[in-house]
Amino acid sequence: MNTDTKSVTQGTITTPQGFLAGATYAGIKTPGVGVLDLGILYSEVPCVTAGVFTTTRVKAAPVALCQQRLVNNRAQAIVVNSGCANACTGAQGLSDAEELAAITAGKLGLSPQEVLVASTGIIGPTLPMVAIRQSIERIALSRENGHDLARAITTTDRFPKETAVQVILKHGDGEIAIGGIAKGSGMIHPDMATLLCFLATDAAIEPGCLKAALRKAIDISFNMITIDGDTSPNDSVIIFANGLAGNKVIEFGSPEATDFEESLGTACLSLAKLIAKDGEGATKLIEVTIESALTTADARRCARAVSGSSLVKAAVHGSDPNWGRIIAATGRSGVEMEESKVDLYLDNLCIMKTGCPLPFDHTEARSIMGRAEVPIRVCLNMGNETATAWGCDLSEEYVTINSEYTT
Amino acid sequence: MNTDTKSVTQGTITTPQGFLAGATYAGIKTPGVGVLDLGILYSEVPCVTAGVFTTTRVKAAPVALCQQRLVNNRAQAIVVNSGCANACTGAQGLSDAEELAAITAGKLGLSPQEVLVASTGIIGPTLPMVAIRQSIERIALSRENGHDLARAITTTDRFPKETAVQVILKHGDGEIAIGGIAKGSGMIHPDMATLLCFLATDAAIEPGCLKAALRKAIDISFNMITIDGDTSPNDSVIIFANGLAGNKVIEFGSPEATDFEESLGTACLSLAKLIAKDGEGATKLIEVTIESALTTADARRCARAVSGSSLVKAAVHGSDPNWGRIIAATGRSGVEMEESKVDLYLDNLCIMKTGCPLPFDHTEARSIMGRAEVPIRVCLNMGNETATAWGCDLSEEYVTINSEYTT
Repeated sequence: MNTDTKSVTQGTITTPQGFLAGATYAGIKTPGVGVLDLGILYSEVPCVTAGVFTTTRVKAAPVALCQQRLVNNRAQAIVVNSGCANACTGAQGLSDAEELAAITAGKLGLSPQEVLVASTGIIGPTLPMVAIRQSIERIALSRENGHDLARAITTTDRFPKETAVQVILKHGDGEIAIGGIAKGSGMIHPDMATLLCFLATDAAIEPGCLKAALRKAIDISFNMITIDGDTSPNDSVIIFANGLAGNKVIEFGSPEATDFEESLGTACLSLAKLIAKDGEGATKLIEVTIESALTTADARRCARAVSGSSLVKAAVHGSDPNWGRIIAATGRSGVEMEESKVDLYLDNLCIMKTGCPLPFDHTEARSIMGRAEVPIRVCLNMGNETATAWGCDLSEEYVTINSEYTT
Repeated sequence: MNTDTKSVTQGTITTPQGFLAGATYAGIKTPGVGVLDLGILYSEVPCVTAGVFTTTRVKAAPVALCQQRLVNNRAQAIVVNSGCANACTGAQGLSDAEELAAITAGKLGLSPQEVLVASTGIIGPTLPMVAIRQSIERIALSRENGHDLARAITTTDRFPKETAVQVILKHGDGEIAIGGIAKGSGMIHPDMATLLCFLATDAAIEPGCLKAALRKAIDISFNMITIDGDTSPNDSVIIFANGLAGNKVIEFGSPEATDFEESLGTACLSLAKLIAKDGEGATKLIEVTIESALTTADARRCARAVSGSSLVKAAVHGSDPNWGRIIAATGRSGVEMEESKVDLYLDNLCIMKTGCPLPFDHTEARSIMGRAEVPIRVCLNMGNETATAWGCDLSEEYVTINSEYTT
């Protein structure tokens, strides 16, 4: 990391200048104390905007709408609901998403084209538009309400996911901020994007450069987490850049672009790890690093296979050093490897060296597997490439949560 | 199905003529009433033999040994243990597997080259050879002891998996039998083979024909089940054909070869479904049929993705008609599809037609999801290809079983 990137205490999506947010309860989710399910992010000035969306063939209506509207890389606000994914809802879903943007645009004095839409929740039902129409007006926008927006996008999440970083552009001419919020916590196996993540920055940046930076940041963060192997039809990561920091416009290929990329990567990684840690039913974060792979693609594929293995996840849940499952998942991942070259570590405790199991201290191994963050490291000794993936343990509670969700 | 294939009541691997089996307790598994963990299958005459093995890069020692020995398609016996996978055991593991074959050969009066070896159980530990050497002698071989062998290869299985079929070769000159046993029930996501399955037939058959029939049978059976997405280093399916039925040797490309293929497919499918039904912690069998796909590969990939989805599995566990998860898994499977063409059925209850959710009777849907066998059917309306995959529900018990296994 070359840039001077500092995380901001209690930072959130409204930490960068000129961003306001707000949320309310529109009756989409089950009622409860302090429940929020409808919110808006708004920039006081027009933004350069980039988005990365789900690659599955079943795309939710708001995803289709955002993809259309982002063709010209401009937007100034987004309206988000939780409790209903507006997915598999056909023509009605698309028309509801358009109306949601239009109502929000009316409230904010924008053109509907400048407003994006995102939804998360149950697949199938259509949005309760009567309740939503009545509720949009109640949303009060302020810088302080960024935390409310973070809560409003959650579903089975146990805590809201927020981050913000302040960045001194060493190669540039100033200081910028990046803030973000994200939503877990099931149907998470991102493929180019994760369920919902919104990012805001006051940096002035050229659209192509913003899009490239977003893709790079996602590749080392959201695309390296898995909770349950299922990819959502609503996966969306969207970034708004309003330029209010007053820096010289960051251009593609410039040293400042590298600074920005790295800082955006830090912000995304922080949110991605929060999502993995808060996987449905999770009690631990699993960090799997694959070292000395032949190619980066190999290292990435292998790290995701190990972190996503149900058997590895269950072993971590029970703090059980059943390391054979780690090697089995490595072997089936499709990675180029030779068993006789593999070293395996739990943190720094060596379990296997050049393919041979070593005698190890089981108490220490159980203690490492019992940590809140469990570090697993496999050295393939095939090449020079490394990748890290994050996941969570598999608990009885995951099953309980997911065997009774719609009803 | 053109052949006259009848299942044999209480049939097992020793139902075909000339096969004997036996098992004992060698102290490899945890002690318990009637526990068996070491067994032998023996043919009274030399056999044409074929095997299909795990495709992962981490192969257990017995797999490596069988692959070497099956080069000439001949073997007359196999010795199998449960409780220890003899995987990730380096040179010691290979030498133990060789010794196990040699001791067994000595007992049976065969050359070690004619004896195969298979193991299943915990990955990492080496075989307790002292105990095994003392126990091999105790194994009594008989036709009746086929059921004992089926029990001896189980680990977390709740019941042994056995099948046998009697086949009248319509195009041929006689009647043959095929019997088999298999072992589940975790680390099951077969890729060319499943954990352990042994098959015996008294048919006279040419080696290339036997191998081709085995591959075809596996493709529609073991390769279409998944329990937890993890592939084992020990996956082996081995068939012994001793020719004692006295039929004219079945040759590649002949009509009798088709009869044999179909019947072997029936036997394998019966075992595969038993494995899926007895997945760790499972309470239900899930049967996913993908219809009208563009290609068979598409249909297969999609059927496996839906049957393997943790969220679909958890919903089935709770008898929860959360059909959005089925469509989400279809969408992320990589299948060629258009959402607006998809029809979805739970048994014959239509849930979605041409991409639009239909109002449906939730009581009936819950009742279908509550059955011991849950039939899910997705019509892609893209082409003419169909595939079926089988899986099981995901229960709290799966987690409990797998969070404390080695200790």
